[in-house]
Parts: sequence; C-alpha cells; structure tokens
Amino acid sequence: MKTSLDCVPCFFTQALEAGRLAGASKATQKRIVERLTKAILKFSLKSPPPLMGRTLYKIVIEETKNKDPFYKVKQKSNKLALKIYPKLKKKVEQAKDRFLVAVELAIAGNIIDFGLSSSLDVEKELKSFLKGNFNIDHKQKKGIFSYHKFKKDIKAAKTILYIGDNAGEIVFDRVLIEEIKRSWPDKQIVYAVRGKPIINDVLIEDAKVCGIDKSAKIVSSGSDAPGIIFKFCTPSFSKLFKKSDLVISKGQGNYEALSENKRPIYFLFRAKCPVAARDIGSGLGDVILKCS
Amino acid sequence: MKTSLDCVPCFFTQALEAGRLAGASKATQKRIVERLTKAILKFSLKSPPPLMGRTLYKIVIEETKNKDPFYKVKQKSNKLALKIYPKLKKKVEQAKDRFLVAVELAIAGNIIDFGLSSSLDVEKELKSFLKGNFNIDHKQKKGIFSYHKFKKDIKAAKTILYIGDNAGEIVFDRVLIEEIKRSWPDKQIVYAVRGKPIINDVLIEDAKVCGIDKSAKIVSSGSDAPGIIFKFCTPSFSKLFKKSDLVISKGQGNYEALSENKRPIYFLFRAKCPVAARDIGSGLGDVILKCS
Repeated sequence: MKTSLDCVPCFFTQALEAGRLAGASKATQKRIVERLTKAILKFSLKSPPPLMGRTLYKIVIEETKNKDPFYKVKQKSNKLALKIYPKLKKKVEQAKDRFLVAVELAIAGNIIDFGLSSSLDVEKELKSFLKGNFNIDHKQKKGIFSYHKFKKDIKAAKTILYIGDNAGEIVFDRVLIEEIKRSWPDKQIVYAVRGKPIINDVLIEDAKVCGIDKSAKIVSSGSDAPGIIFKFCTPSFSKLFKKSDLVISKGQGNYEALSENKRPIYFLFRAKCPVAARDIGSGLGDVILKCS
Repeated sequence: MKTSLDCVPCFFTQALEAGRLAGASKATQKRIVERLTKAILKFSLKSPPPLMGRTLYKIVIEETKNKDPFYKVKQKSNKLALKIYPKLKKKVEQAKDRFLVAVELAIAGNIIDFGLSSSLDVEKELKSFLKGNFNIDHKQKKGIFSYHKFKKDIKAAKTILYIGDNAGEIVFDRVLIEEIKRSWPDKQIVYAVRGKPIINDVLIEDAKVCGIDKSAKIVSSGSDAPGIIFKFCTPSFSKLFKKSDLVISKGQGNYEALSENKRPIYFLFRAKCPVAARDIGSGLGDVILKCS
C-alpha cells in the first residue's frame, strides 16, 4: 500500500504519542517534530507507511534515548491477554465451528487496544466483538474471501508462515495456531516477530512469554519496521517467506507493507484508518480476512 | 493562546480538507502538503494557531487558484440557519429568562457544523444541545464566569464590539444582538467580520444576508486570519477594539488569537479541540462563556 497524504497528520500524532510515552520533554518533542518534518519532505509517497513508521520511531528513540518506549505497554498487553487465554480456549472448545471461532478470535486480537485497557475492558470488547459485527463466514464482497477458502488452503499447506503484529494480540494468534495444530498436527508453523523494538510490535520474548513456542517455531524477521519491508529483513526470513506454502499476515502494518507483494498472502486485520480501508475497498473499522 | 505541537497534525488535516474542497488534484494536494511542511519548519510555537491557519489557507488558495473554497459551504450554512431563525426567536420569546436563552443559542451556533448538516440535523443538534449539557448559569469553576456578570457588564456598556466567527452561526449571533437591543435599545453594537475569505468565516456579505445590519453596524476587521491578529487588521478596527466598552469574541479561532490580549473580553465558544480545552482549563467539548 502506498502512503497517502492523509498519513502525514497521523505520522505527527504517532511521533508525539511515542515521544511522550518515552518521556520526552517539550523541547525534545519539538526536536522530534522538526526532524520528522524534514524527513517527510524527503519521503516518497510510493513507499508504504511502515517505512515512515520506522523512520519516525528511530527519531523518537534517538531523541529520547529510550530504546523501547512501549516496553511497559507490551508487558501489560501480554499479561492481560494471557489472563483471558483460558476463556478464549473455552470459547473455541464450545463452538460449533471451532476453526471459525479461532479465526474470529485471531482477528479480534487485532482490534483490542490492550495498551490502554483493563482485563475487564478486554473481555467486554471481546464480548461485543464476537456478539455481532463479525461475519467473515458470509463476506464475499470486494475481494474479501470467505473463510472456507482460508481453511481449505491451510489444509493443503505443509508449511505456514504466520507473521505476528502486536503484543497481547499474540495470545489470540496462539489460539488459532493451536487450533490449526489440533486439526492438522503435521503442519509446520513458523511464527515471525520483529527484529527490534518498534511501537508495540511483538518481539521474540513476547512470543515466548505468550507461549507461541509450544506449537510454532519462533523466528525474527530481522526488521525494525512496523510491517514487513524486505530490505530490513534477514535473508533467511526472505527465503522463508518465499518458500512457505501459506503466509498469514496479521495486522494493518503488515498489510500496508505486504499488500503489493506478488505471492498470495492471507491478511487478517481490522481496517483501522480510512487510508487502509480505502486501499482494501472496505469500510472503516471493517474486519478483514483477505487473500491477496 | 500559543500553538502546541499537537496543532501540527491538525494543520495538515485542515490544509488537505480545504485543498480538496477547493478542487485540488492529487499533485496539487502534494504541493500544498510540501509547502505547509516547509512553513511549519519556520513557524514559531509562540504564535497563535490562527497565524498558521492564515498561512495554510493562503497556500491552498495560491495552489488551487480558488479564492474562496468554502463559498458554497457558507451559502448553505447561512440558508440553513436563516431557515430556523423563526424557531430560535420563538425559543427566546417563550423563555423564562430570555437573555439566558439568547446567550445559550449564540454559543449553540458555534457548536453546530452547518457545512455538513441538513436543516433537520441542525434542529436535532440544537434540541439536544439546549436539552441538557448546557448550564452556563451555574458554571463558576475554573474561571468560567457566570452569565450574570456578562449580563451586568452588557448593561453597563454603551458600545459593544461583537466579533463574529462562522457563516450560519451568525444567525444565532443575530438573535443575541436583537435581544440586547430589545432590552437596552441605546446600546451601540458593532459586528466585526473578516476582511477576506478564510475557511468558513463570516464576511460582510454573510452578515448582511443574515440580517445583522438590522440591529448592528457591520465592519470588516480587515484580517484574513481565522482569528483576530492585529497586524492584519485595519487601524480603525484596532482603535474600535480598544475603545469599545465591551468586546464579545465568538468562536475558538478568535479565542486562540485574543486569549492573551490585555483588555477584558467575553469569549463565547465551544472548546472543540484538546489544545484549546487545556489552555482554558476546561474539558473537551465544554461550552465556554469566559471573561478574560
């Protein structure tokens, strides 16, 4: 997905939020905004937004000398999500179509803002999410594929690369991965995380804490962008991406970075901003399960 | 009020909105954003936000060659507000405290986004506004003065300068001005408008169309900023501002520009953004009647 001019205000908002979270003084915030302004003048709109996400985050890290401003947010998110993990499992176990519910939960994980929530909020959000506005089973419009094709393709694949997105959300991915392994124990699943701290994106330690290693191999993409941009990835990750039978990409950042990639990819996320919604042809806030 | 770093994303959003309304192509929108980016690098945070509002609007006008992008919006706003004028008058006439309701309506006019509404929406918004969340009569906290002081000061003044804000809203100002004139026919009221098109701000023709001239003298401030910045005003307006017994300033833009002025001013507006709310010490969306 190319960067839109509408991303520009959002870059500033993100930089200010990250800066403040990193403890930036007003003078430091001003320097962050100045450096970002200069970076935007040089930025090509043909690049995907996560490339600027990487740049702005680098500015924040350099100016605040805080290498991981979202560290506490991530810890809290993981803890919260792990707390409701038994309930998620129960939901799947009691479902008529276990796999459908596991897919729904994986996307639900992308919707909940763990960083700002309490355990109660998460359960409430989850409840309202699963109650009504989610119906991928019947979505066939505008390139949004049915989940049946997703299930069929998973069944046919031997190797699956699952690209993670945020801390907390990863526990919801675990539920889906465990459901895949339960149904088809021979699948080889690799779970990819970021190489360095970037926003609240998942790192190796988050994946381990959240128990992903029990059913998938964890690898680092090497990238420090909030989306897969191959020039920042390790050669081994790029190879893995190419040779895997099926790729699952979680979250909007990975969609933004990978939407123009030539290989088929299953994107699972919620269209959180008008630019992404316009790009995919969905409404703002729509739940997306799409095969590119 | 000084510009906050949080105003930066908003400047871009405003420039893009105005540009699109002015019919800017994607290439022109890009040029607008580039020029704004450069202007922001030179902008002092000690200046009030309407100074950048003026700059960004000038960029939009120059790049699109559309001298009044909001022309149609303004016409529609005036028409809509004039349509409900008889109902506003009736509300005042039926009120226990006519003056209080007239003040409430004048502030209500600052809340309604006429540009995007239908007549029905405006009436609905107005109804919900007058029903509940407005209670200036009892607001005494954090420098928000009671309306009784306002009434007393109006009573004592011979000359009143009323600085207008947006098209449409002006009809609500008319109701208040007419109520002042009804109670105290000897008051000399001057209604000030912008000197040139700027966003949806009121010009002489809007004030005339909306019937302000029936009870007040209309003057142009000469300014083409979305708030009173004296270096862009005519000397005669500056003199008028100084010598008037009482000044009523409508809207957030005028508050942003005049909040640090030394003379007492009555500000009537709604705090529409977190920066202004923080500056005044109110909550976001709060209704403000404040004497500086």
